[in-house]
Amino acid sequence: MVTLVALYKRPSDDGEFEKHFLEIHLPLLRQFPGLHSLNVLRVTGAPLGESKFSFLVEASFPSRAAMDAALSSREGKAVARDIMAFAAEYITAFHGEPIA
Amino acid sequence: MVTLVALYKRPSDDGEFEKHFLEIHLPLLRQFPGLHSLNVLRVTGAPLGESKFSFLVEASFPSRAAMDAALSSREGKAVARDIMAFAAEYITAFHGEPIA
Repeated sequence: MVTLVALYKRPSDDGEFEKHFLEIHLPLLRQFPGLHSLNVLRVTGAPLGESKFSFLVEASFPSRAAMDAALSSREGKAVARDIMAFAAEYITAFHGEPIA
Repeated sequence: MVTLVALYKRPSDDGEFEKHFLEIHLPLLRQFPGLHSLNVLRVTGAPLGESKFSFLVEASFPSRAAMDAALSSREGKAVARDIMAFAAEYITAFHGEPIA
């Protein structure tokens, strides 16, 4: 299993960003081909005060090859275009493997 | 459900940090009282090159009250002390709620 993680900072125009995230970005993410699971957290705070983040997305795939295929698919390119349109300066992405 | 997320940057002395994370920090995290689930990702890279992160931890609790109780418990204080000892400058923590 491989998990692609995307972490979105909270922009100053929070309402507009959240609307785009929920109504456009999330439906695009759900279309990743070969997706094993998609988990989304709405950030509600931090142990020490506020958090600079707004959302955390975890898209899990059965293998690294499946993740790479999803990212280079038509649907993956639509996600990348959408990120460039609304979240390029707010997103940090990485991938990882679960530790038992 | 509430998830406490901790994201650890990769320090320059990666081997020592990883040893402490796996052999001391992770066993302490598993002792959080009231834990619903604990997921740990070892970061393996990023869609565009390297990632500055090394590990992602998600500790889920049935409620905000359960998370707060875990953080202020004896075991939670042991986790906090351990963070101060090895990861204070590398960790970012926040909590969030799953979006259906």
